[in-house]
Amino acid sequence: MEQNLQQTISLLSRTPAALDALLRDLPETWTLRDEGDDTWSAFDVVGHLIHGERTDWMPRARRILQFGESRAFEIFDRLAQRRESQGKSLGQLLDEFGRLRTENLNDLRALNLGKEQLELRGQHPALGVVTLSQLLATWAVHDLTHLHQISRIMAHQYRDAVGPWSAYLGVLRCAGHSS
Amino acid sequence: MEQNLQQTISLLSRTPAALDALLRDLPETWTLRDEGDDTWSAFDVVGHLIHGERTDWMPRARRILQFGESRAFEIFDRLAQRRESQGKSLGQLLDEFGRLRTENLNDLRALNLGKEQLELRGQHPALGVVTLSQLLATWAVHDLTHLHQISRIMAHQYRDAVGPWSAYLGVLRCAGHSS
Repeated sequence: MEQNLQQTISLLSRTPAALDALLRDLPETWTLRDEGDDTWSAFDVVGHLIHGERTDWMPRARRILQFGESRAFEIFDRLAQRRESQGKSLGQLLDEFGRLRTENLNDLRALNLGKEQLELRGQHPALGVVTLSQLLATWAVHDLTHLHQISRIMAHQYRDAVGPWSAYLGVLRCAGHSS
Repeated sequence: MEQNLQQTISLLSRTPAALDALLRDLPETWTLRDEGDDTWSAFDVVGHLIHGERTDWMPRARRILQFGESRAFEIFDRLAQRRESQGKSLGQLLDEFGRLRTENLNDLRALNLGKEQLELRGQHPALGVVTLSQLLATWAVHDLTHLHQISRIMAHQYRDAVGPWSAYLGVLRCAGHSS
């Protein structure tokens, strides 16, 4: 199906509360452990989502509206959270993510984008020409890819504990394509 | 890591609120659509989780405590939700899931299980001998496998809308191992 702005905003507006309900005050064995070398914990993922709110989605939307294809997006730093999350608690990160998402969605609504604007084109530094509509759809699916990842990271912690049931638990067979 | 009862309960107690925050009052294009023939929607998944609360986890735990390996578990009906969810709204299902989960966790806490009881063994109709500890770990990972599935089902609806970004969105490359 096509990107529909109201549907996209509906989903984007729910992600902070969903992650909050899932993660806040959980034992750190669920939230600080990762899947092994060079993988992320749930804590790392929330930091990554925060960095996206600051530097990715709305800045790129504004660049498309202002410059079209003439000025490529800044390259997104996938490891920024290692620096930016230092010394913070998961609760602080969840608060920050919720606040930034609310601000960004208020800004997005205020743009009052119509069908023609959604077809405007920008320049991705690696993918080439993309549309504003594709950017906004990707913002939503990016939330889902990291929800998918968090569920997999957490399930990994009980990989041995489930014993023979691992054969029935699909999340334990996920190949890590969403890190 | 080993199953730890407090950690397991911490996770199990959060799932209904996380699904509620993610799904309640979302447009039905996110919640009623599936991934194609013989696949489930998010609505179907919540119905399946309800059926598990009624017939799977605590009934099986009680059977282990009462009968050990001498009486195998009842076979779990993976399609029961098609019948049981008929005529209900997603909001009703989310309410029902939350209520049943709270009741089941109260019952689980009341059992006051110690280390020795967690090693008690039961008989799974297909997997053979399993322990109570493995059953409880599986209850938690089963929640995560379906959160993983829901994020994938929802992402699938925007598979085309994201355009070239599909290359970066791991959830779109998930092979459906968690249905």
